[in-house]
Amino acid sequence: MSTDPLLMIPGPTNLPPQVREALGRPSIYHRGPEFAQLLAECSEELKPLFGTEEDVIILTASSTGAMEAGVVNFLSPGEQVIAIRTGKFGHRYGEIAQAFGAQVNWLEVEYGRAAQPEQLSELVRQVQPQAVLLAQNETSTGVCQDVGALSQVIRGYDGLIIVDAVSSLGGIPFNMDEWGVDVVVAGSQKALMLPPGLGFVAVSPRAWQAAEKATIPKYYFDLPAARQSLAKGQTPYTPNMNLIVALREALRLIHGEGLEAVYQRHSNLSQMTRAGMAALGLQLFADPQYASAVVTSVKAPQGLDSTRLVQVVAAQHNILISGGQGELKGKIFRVGHLGWVGPQQVRQTIVAIASGLNELGYSCDAEKALAATQQR
Amino acid sequence: MSTDPLLMIPGPTNLPPQVREALGRPSIYHRGPEFAQLLAECSEELKPLFGTEEDVIILTASSTGAMEAGVVNFLSPGEQVIAIRTGKFGHRYGEIAQAFGAQVNWLEVEYGRAAQPEQLSELVRQVQPQAVLLAQNETSTGVCQDVGALSQVIRGYDGLIIVDAVSSLGGIPFNMDEWGVDVVVAGSQKALMLPPGLGFVAVSPRAWQAAEKATIPKYYFDLPAARQSLAKGQTPYTPNMNLIVALREALRLIHGEGLEAVYQRHSNLSQMTRAGMAALGLQLFADPQYASAVVTSVKAPQGLDSTRLVQVVAAQHNILISGGQGELKGKIFRVGHLGWVGPQQVRQTIVAIASGLNELGYSCDAEKALAATQQR
Repeated sequence: MSTDPLLMIPGPTNLPPQVREALGRPSIYHRGPEFAQLLAECSEELKPLFGTEEDVIILTASSTGAMEAGVVNFLSPGEQVIAIRTGKFGHRYGEIAQAFGAQVNWLEVEYGRAAQPEQLSELVRQVQPQAVLLAQNETSTGVCQDVGALSQVIRGYDGLIIVDAVSSLGGIPFNMDEWGVDVVVAGSQKALMLPPGLGFVAVSPRAWQAAEKATIPKYYFDLPAARQSLAKGQTPYTPNMNLIVALREALRLIHGEGLEAVYQRHSNLSQMTRAGMAALGLQLFADPQYASAVVTSVKAPQGLDSTRLVQVVAAQHNILISGGQGELKGKIFRVGHLGWVGPQQVRQTIVAIASGLNELGYSCDAEKALAATQQR
Repeated sequence: MSTDPLLMIPGPTNLPPQVREALGRPSIYHRGPEFAQLLAECSEELKPLFGTEEDVIILTASSTGAMEAGVVNFLSPGEQVIAIRTGKFGHRYGEIAQAFGAQVNWLEVEYGRAAQPEQLSELVRQVQPQAVLLAQNETSTGVCQDVGALSQVIRGYDGLIIVDAVSSLGGIPFNMDEWGVDVVVAGSQKALMLPPGLGFVAVSPRAWQAAEKATIPKYYFDLPAARQSLAKGQTPYTPNMNLIVALREALRLIHGEGLEAVYQRHSNLSQMTRAGMAALGLQLFADPQYASAVVTSVKAPQGLDSTRLVQVVAAQHNILISGGQGELKGKIFRVGHLGWVGPQQVRQTIVAIASGLNELGYSCDAEKALAATQQR
């Protein structure tokens, strides 16, 4: 009997058995033909997730490293950028740009809401930025932004649009080429069902051109160097090939299920979760119009610190959900429903949350919540 | 029957079964008490390998990322550094410093030899560098430098000594505190018997002071931030916790065998390899006084491109050895004997090399070479 917790946090996510098996395989040599084939196959099979025909670069780093790569290769110190502050991760992207000397103009968005194209348009007109930085899915608030609409605003200008798709890639559609997005960064430990440790970056031809003029110093995250190596079936530095072997298994699972079916499953799980929470008498935190398909944010009932609910659900049901981050700490909790999860796990989680609330003195009806998940 | 190649390259190395099992375990939550305990234990158990009482920072990145962290946290653009060019990796460290704007003064060392303290002393007096960068074990030539002696040269000045111990840590003794070394960087895929993907950095109090004034921009590799997180049992960004779980297993293996015994085993394997190669009539490339305990470099016989030998040994024996890198390509081959290897694997490799040489028309006697390994 498994005693491993069920991970219903917005990453890291549960690992499929195929991925776990692949992780433990013997190491392969990273300068041989077997690795070259593996790298090419993974880069190719990642493209539909990004919605691009461009190469996808695989980096041995956490998602934040990939976000850094998405900044240092395309900007120069002193350049104006706009960062859309939708929450912790929107903030992080601006913070990274600041660390490397960019002049960051914050577009403030009320937490729980998405940036509106008109709002961005106004600031873009004023600032004429070299780049706009934003998160497709703001993990801290459970909001998914309309990247296509936001991208259109910038396309009338010279600036780049650089998108953090860390928690959305593979769970929510991304159409990089169609939307005209320049740089998209993602990571392994979310909808891709892998441990953390790999970052992914896709780059438009416009952005490759911008890279030629960008003067922020870099070495480990030098993407033009990585692109040159990729053409030879290599990475510039020794990659985490065990994770890349597992990535191939994860991509086989995703393409085996069918990418559209994967997106539909995430959307269904999100609707189930929201219906369940509402039936428990709880208020959703994110604007329903922009509610994320991969993470649902829920307001704690009046008078309850959400951290306590998270603790009770973990202690009594061995299911991990998340509390709020930063100024939302204690005020909301978040249920991740991405990667290797299905309706059964969502139902278990709803029951566990109902039971936790009852334990904490907030009467609610798990049966009603379960029924609500089926009425969608 | 295993069809996996035996890795006798200087990294990545063979994975012990305990490590492979640990890699495939379910993910754990990186902000919980279980991870905090894991991180603290690993950081603590790494200290004897570095020979330090200082914290060891664990980074989710390849070794080159750890090398970058060892530069960007301690230097400012325009500062003078000395980089000891003993081969490809000595060169890389200088190249990283250059990429971030340091003024690099190269100390040229004939490939196959180690830097001499007098040579360094002269240049240090002239340059008064902010830092000296060097590799303890130069993987490309099979040379291990006397870090203690080189460090003493710098200790009369204000500069830092920053050492790449990527291929040596855990296979060759390192006495950071005793030698007065300021920054030591290492990686997971060498003597630590793990896949690539983790970097390690140990930092002296002097270097932490220098970090306060260092102005090279950084974010993902910000070591003071990592140190603050470590004190709370966390990492600033989602770590590759599956690799860290496996690291604990690898450290248990190392400390179970005993660190001194591990070093002795590597030294013995190196002596066996060198005796075997000499008995095959081959010339060793590295200065015997500085011959590495983890990788042996051997000159190809007159008229033979070493790349062909590497290919034949792989194709006929399923054993991977390495050719030369850069200007040594075709001229030398290298046998890695580090991590999860013992006398049996070294003997198999000697037989395979003898057989490969015979196949390529260079008559040699495997039996004599095996006998030589036992006469040490």
